[in-house]
Amino acid sequence: SMCPLPLQAVRLNDRFWAPRLQTNRSVMLPSQIQQCEETGRIDNFRRASGKKQIDFQGIYFNDSDVYKLLEAIAYAIAYEPNASLEAQMEAIIAEIAAAQQPDGYLNTYFMFDRAKDRFTNLRDMHEIYCAGHLFQAAVAHYRATGRTHLLDVARRYADLLYDKFGPNGQPGACGHPEAEMALVELARTTGEARYLELARCMVEARGRGVLGGSSYHQDHVPFVEQREFVGHAVRHLYLASGATDIVLETGDKAHLATLDALWQDLIQHKLYITGGAGSRYEGEAFGAPYELPDDRAYAETCANIALVMWCYRLLHLKADPIYADIMERALYNGVLSGISLDGEHYFYQNPLADRGGHRRQKWFGCACCPPNIARLLASLPGYFASANPSNQLYLHLYAQSEIRFSTSEGDVSLRVNTNYPWEGLIEIEVLDAPSHTTTLFLRIPQWAANATLHCNGNASADTAYPASGSYAKVALSGAPATIRLELSMPIQWIQSHPHVQNHYQKVALVRGPIVYCLEQADHSNTDPWDILLTHETTCQPEERPELLNGVTVLTGRGVALKRERWAGKLYAPYQPYEISHPVTITAIPYHAWANREAGPMTVWLPVL
Amino acid sequence: SMCPLPLQAVRLNDRFWAPRLQTNRSVMLPSQIQQCEETGRIDNFRRASGKKQIDFQGIYFNDSDVYKLLEAIAYAIAYEPNASLEAQMEAIIAEIAAAQQPDGYLNTYFMFDRAKDRFTNLRDMHEIYCAGHLFQAAVAHYRATGRTHLLDVARRYADLLYDKFGPNGQPGACGHPEAEMALVELARTTGEARYLELARCMVEARGRGVLGGSSYHQDHVPFVEQREFVGHAVRHLYLASGATDIVLETGDKAHLATLDALWQDLIQHKLYITGGAGSRYEGEAFGAPYELPDDRAYAETCANIALVMWCYRLLHLKADPIYADIMERALYNGVLSGISLDGEHYFYQNPLADRGGHRRQKWFGCACCPPNIARLLASLPGYFASANPSNQLYLHLYAQSEIRFSTSEGDVSLRVNTNYPWEGLIEIEVLDAPSHTTTLFLRIPQWAANATLHCNGNASADTAYPASGSYAKVALSGAPATIRLELSMPIQWIQSHPHVQNHYQKVALVRGPIVYCLEQADHSNTDPWDILLTHETTCQPEERPELLNGVTVLTGRGVALKRERWAGKLYAPYQPYEISHPVTITAIPYHAWANREAGPMTVWLPVL
Repeated sequence: SMCPLPLQAVRLNDRFWAPRLQTNRSVMLPSQIQQCEETGRIDNFRRASGKKQIDFQGIYFNDSDVYKLLEAIAYAIAYEPNASLEAQMEAIIAEIAAAQQPDGYLNTYFMFDRAKDRFTNLRDMHEIYCAGHLFQAAVAHYRATGRTHLLDVARRYADLLYDKFGPNGQPGACGHPEAEMALVELARTTGEARYLELARCMVEARGRGVLGGSSYHQDHVPFVEQREFVGHAVRHLYLASGATDIVLETGDKAHLATLDALWQDLIQHKLYITGGAGSRYEGEAFGAPYELPDDRAYAETCANIALVMWCYRLLHLKADPIYADIMERALYNGVLSGISLDGEHYFYQNPLADRGGHRRQKWFGCACCPPNIARLLASLPGYFASANPSNQLYLHLYAQSEIRFSTSEGDVSLRVNTNYPWEGLIEIEVLDAPSHTTTLFLRIPQWAANATLHCNGNASADTAYPASGSYAKVALSGAPATIRLELSMPIQWIQSHPHVQNHYQKVALVRGPIVYCLEQADHSNTDPWDILLTHETTCQPEERPELLNGVTVLTGRGVALKRERWAGKLYAPYQPYEISHPVTITAIPYHAWANREAGPMTVWLPVL
Repeated sequence: SMCPLPLQAVRLNDRFWAPRLQTNRSVMLPSQIQQCEETGRIDNFRRASGKKQIDFQGIYFNDSDVYKLLEAIAYAIAYEPNASLEAQMEAIIAEIAAAQQPDGYLNTYFMFDRAKDRFTNLRDMHEIYCAGHLFQAAVAHYRATGRTHLLDVARRYADLLYDKFGPNGQPGACGHPEAEMALVELARTTGEARYLELARCMVEARGRGVLGGSSYHQDHVPFVEQREFVGHAVRHLYLASGATDIVLETGDKAHLATLDALWQDLIQHKLYITGGAGSRYEGEAFGAPYELPDDRAYAETCANIALVMWCYRLLHLKADPIYADIMERALYNGVLSGISLDGEHYFYQNPLADRGGHRRQKWFGCACCPPNIARLLASLPGYFASANPSNQLYLHLYAQSEIRFSTSEGDVSLRVNTNYPWEGLIEIEVLDAPSHTTTLFLRIPQWAANATLHCNGNASADTAYPASGSYAKVALSGAPATIRLELSMPIQWIQSHPHVQNHYQKVALVRGPIVYCLEQADHSNTDPWDILLTHETTCQPEERPELLNGVTVLTGRGVALKRERWAGKLYAPYQPYEISHPVTITAIPYHAWANREAGPMTVWLPVL
């Protein structure tokens, strides 16, 4: 297994992520603070502390949005100090701390006349879920500032929960998992083993009559017996993430079979090509195997983020690059589509086809997604690299960056030069490294056949032709050294398993980690839903620095369907499709869709 | 416009419908009576009348199931006397009548402590909906027996509703339309114009702030401005049916533009090939145009029945055979799939593809569908033929039958000899007819190109080659005469509009009114989801009297996809599909699926 590097270790200075992290700090976080104020989410704390005599506002789990936002701010300032954000964060924390009850309880909904209902409906009321987000915010705040006042709030509440639902309390868990991950983080941060134990109790409480027994709540069987993703997608992915955290900390193998089976179920049956998870609107749920509708994909931004979190944990547990592959796929596509280029509009659902009606919103009544993207972006540098117990570095993701961290044997300093994800060439300058020989592990994505690896100076590669879907090994004995990894990035036509019935004879265009789509804005005279590829179609990547903040598009020649015979008709006798005219297609990255005028979009393209 | 014949006018003695009507009388109705007893639906009336001191049982709109069942029994005994069913019907009616309140109010949920909540939540509580089903039961009971005691109950309640929500009351309508149709029927039966006026008030109350304004409730705009089917499918179809009834009675043209636009929206954008309506699980709702998923089709049995009811009304309003075409399509496919061959199991949803998990159930907590099928089957003979104001007969549907009715100019008696829907030859013997010349109108379905029509005796056809999608005219001047109509029934490969993205390069096999599907039980070594048609595939109809109570299947040669490369994979680089082996396909009528062992099924077949 491996461990994350400190968040500050990876300094992104690339053209893809660095501007997005900047937008997060300068636009998303301030606007989300404002939204939380305007919608009464922070006033709810002022009400709970007695500072304001007002009604509770919004949904009963709205506290969690504030906590997620605080977590995002904390990681953002840990990465890059920002006095204004920090001051606002501390002001909100003061409101939260003032709302805590003498026994440690803290939930602004269950106050006053509702105090009697505390912990009486664990299944529906998201009480422990909100607590979990508080704990994660507190951990982030402590890591960012070294200050313990929010961590103390968290500990007091966690102690209460331990007494109630720990090994000596009653069996209990939240209808919406999330606190499991949070409690493990709290245990890591405080060294308090009871919180880890409480997390384990909560995972093990499922399927034992505490939550009503529905698969929607992943309560149909005990977690240890679960083998398929079912029910609410965010919940199941958070639960799996929490269970993975427990295995990471305890080494306990009891849940490994479940985690492995769930993973296989996901990647073999239930994952969108965009890394989207949870295909059903009804119940925001996983569908049956191969049930992956495109226009009605749910693929909630939070579920796709939860998948990134789970992959990250599995990657640290197993050091298998498949987890980084899927993490990267979700990150560059199904997660990033959740936020507009301007940083002020959000998708809740992330469909793979649309007629133009699905547009990002400024905010939601149930606003789980916006602060979830914010906290992921704020902590993103931590996803790029890890170290194993021997202080050997793993690079999972690539971007123009500098990586610096200290080990007991000396400092490591690397400069990564690349135009990833648009180009596959990655040059790594080793500026500093311990002089004894260590191994540097470089992820070779599954899609990168024909990768080549060349080293100079104090580095030497195990092989010049590292296998795709592996970590290439580079032996390093001090600086200087240069490493040149070239990942081939052909444009791939990807097909789905034939039981994905809606993808018969269709392909998605994928290049490197980026999934592409056709959008109306690039096809003035032809509806993207009428465009077909042919066996003669070839596509080329083309840099478009002026487009959508700078993207590489794919261009090529397709054909447009003749649609005249269908005027006014839904069904007609079969005829082979007739072609109307050739079309120059311009495919844009899926994550960038719906940032221009509204119009049809589609990821999956029929092949004639 | 035209008028229905008396229910007794058409005597079905065919091999398709007559056994199903028999099953309705001998299995469905008795078992539904038993279900209504066992689930407390009838006890709820005994509770309301004070005969039993028990809690209300089940869902707040459960009264409606009892009323629908009574309607079914009434039409069944009107068609064929049955002392046992009649006695049970009267016993239930006695319980209902005893539960009516002095002011006419009748709803077993809003009794005792809930009496104060009557008519306080029209949007959600289905109160007027339940009343509507009472009225329809009362009309059916009166028509079947000539007795007025249930009709009197209905009138008292309708009078109360008129006072509350009629032109002199407050604006009001039910969140679940249905009473509109019922009130028009009650007006027809009683001659009481106020009920018709109340129905019109209720249609016109929509979109005016009474129901909260959601499209789910068709309350987003006034009915007169509605142009698209939206929201809950059964509700919108019932609403359209009620509005059509009002136009039929009043001749008022204000709503015609809405009805026409809704019809075009349905048949151009939102109708399954099976006649199923309402594609979304979430909200049991209509989807966007061309949103017609197969495995996740909702296509609720009740919505498909509602479509039959609406078509029937539009047909009588406009005498355009397109309405009979769609009515027949729904009847033989999406409605009939709702009931098992044994008459004891029901589908709520009617998907067009499945992996074997979707099976009919004995009953449902929300049991709207079972008695809805029962009342449709019981009244089905009424759907076959109508007469216009000049007493000229229209034949809409064909089956081996005898048709007899009296007009002021004399009796009409026809014998229809046919093996429809399996064969297209229809021979009509005119046994009796007025001696002056009248016109007999025979529906030529849209699918019946190359129909031929030949007459002997006192009949003469307008043309020997009647156009498909028309009513062929036969001049009739007394008996005897014979008419020989031959509808060609080629096997059609039907394709969807290219914007039905899940049907790219797929076809449905259709012959006459019957839509076919492939089911696992007929394909021992090949998964139906792996079967492709090729351009060499030809299919033949084949009578199979021993199969599924006697059906005509379609047989032919297809090919099976080679699936080995997909083991464990969801996505892979594009390759043209490889063929594993040729397959003899046996397509069964869609309505008969899931009557054998569970397994995959699919209507839409890829063409290689």
